[in-house]
Amino acid sequence: MREQFHGELRAMSENMVEMTRLVGSAIARATTALMDADLTLAETVIAADLQVDAIQEQIEERALAMLATQAPVATDLRVIVTGLRMTADLERMGDLARHVAKLARLRYPHSAIPPEPRATIVQMGQVAERIVAKTGSVIATRDLAVAGELETDDDAMDQLHRGLFTLLLSPSWTYGIEAAVDVTLCGRYYERFADHAVSVARRVIFLVTGERHHVGEPSGAHVIGSAGA
Amino acid sequence: MREQFHGELRAMSENMVEMTRLVGSAIARATTALMDADLTLAETVIAADLQVDAIQEQIEERALAMLATQAPVATDLRVIVTGLRMTADLERMGDLARHVAKLARLRYPHSAIPPEPRATIVQMGQVAERIVAKTGSVIATRDLAVAGELETDDDAMDQLHRGLFTLLLSPSWTYGIEAAVDVTLCGRYYERFADHAVSVARRVIFLVTGERHHVGEPSGAHVIGSAGA
Repeated sequence: MREQFHGELRAMSENMVEMTRLVGSAIARATTALMDADLTLAETVIAADLQVDAIQEQIEERALAMLATQAPVATDLRVIVTGLRMTADLERMGDLARHVAKLARLRYPHSAIPPEPRATIVQMGQVAERIVAKTGSVIATRDLAVAGELETDDDAMDQLHRGLFTLLLSPSWTYGIEAAVDVTLCGRYYERFADHAVSVARRVIFLVTGERHHVGEPSGAHVIGSAGA
Repeated sequence: MREQFHGELRAMSENMVEMTRLVGSAIARATTALMDADLTLAETVIAADLQVDAIQEQIEERALAMLATQAPVATDLRVIVTGLRMTADLERMGDLARHVAKLARLRYPHSAIPPEPRATIVQMGQVAERIVAKTGSVIATRDLAVAGELETDDDAMDQLHRGLFTLLLSPSWTYGIEAAVDVTLCGRYYERFADHAVSVARRVIFLVTGERHHVGEPSGAHVIGSAGA
């Protein structure tokens, strides 16, 4: 019984790692679709999000079944309940990758991103990929050193986000309002994607060490604060 | 024992209703702070979010204790696990109200919202308040008729959000990029606030009827889709 239970917990963890892989692939393809105005690629990202949602529902049902049949306590209970929160974050990351892809689709055959902010958005995409890959390995290995790197990666994302606002608000912005709106939303999608990934990793750390980082959002208003004030 | 358990469930539900009251008040005050460039009011919203976070943590701890000591199954189990998801949504709504308040603070002594979109933002604030108030009464009463109204209110929010993009992208937008960025982010905050509230109400309905609405997000990219395509 006990062994079966731990097998179930392992399966839950493997499913979450699979979710990180899927949303990592989704954000990578969404970034390419956005840069290259690649409609077909954008459509594949939008369609693939259903798969992420399906894994989440499956994890939820299995977690409920474990709670009902095994009545876990203490650490086991916390692992399951925290796992539910983590899968909700991962599911949301899939939505955010889909939003980026939808923006690519909306502006096709043009790219939504004008020349000047392209380098920043490409880097935000790369940092997002790196963060979600590390989140996957934190789930798989519970490696606290990797978890520490994530904080640095998250700072890099915030800095890129601030850079985006600097570009947007500089007098040399000549791409008009529509592009500004697109870039603003896009920046927010990447930044939220990273926030959710870091939040997942922090939950793992909390399970391992019992130390709670504040899982807040540095984010939006803050970031404009630095750029626009 | 059983009676005590149901007392605990009631307390959990009452705490969630209290959270709706707090985040409803927060979004109302944040809207006023934004419109009137009222720094003191903005600060109170930002500070008050800690209270929402504290209630969420309290609900989480008590839910874990209930799971550990009572080992609930079937409906009771679903109520608790769903309650955890609902409190996460409510906590996030508090963050979004705080974001609006931070934007108000950032642009003080000016209002972040230029004359033209003011009426729309005020309405978005009112719809957000109405939605969260109804969500509170759905939690308290499980009244399916009120839950139905929420779908209409949510459509109203989406329509206002689309209207905002129409204003932003019209040739008569003369307020420049910074105001466009602020209005874009603000619109997103209100729309996400409403999405979370509707998602909470849908979870209650699912508990009552067993019928799952898709708790997705009509949202962002979609909305730009209609306005910008």
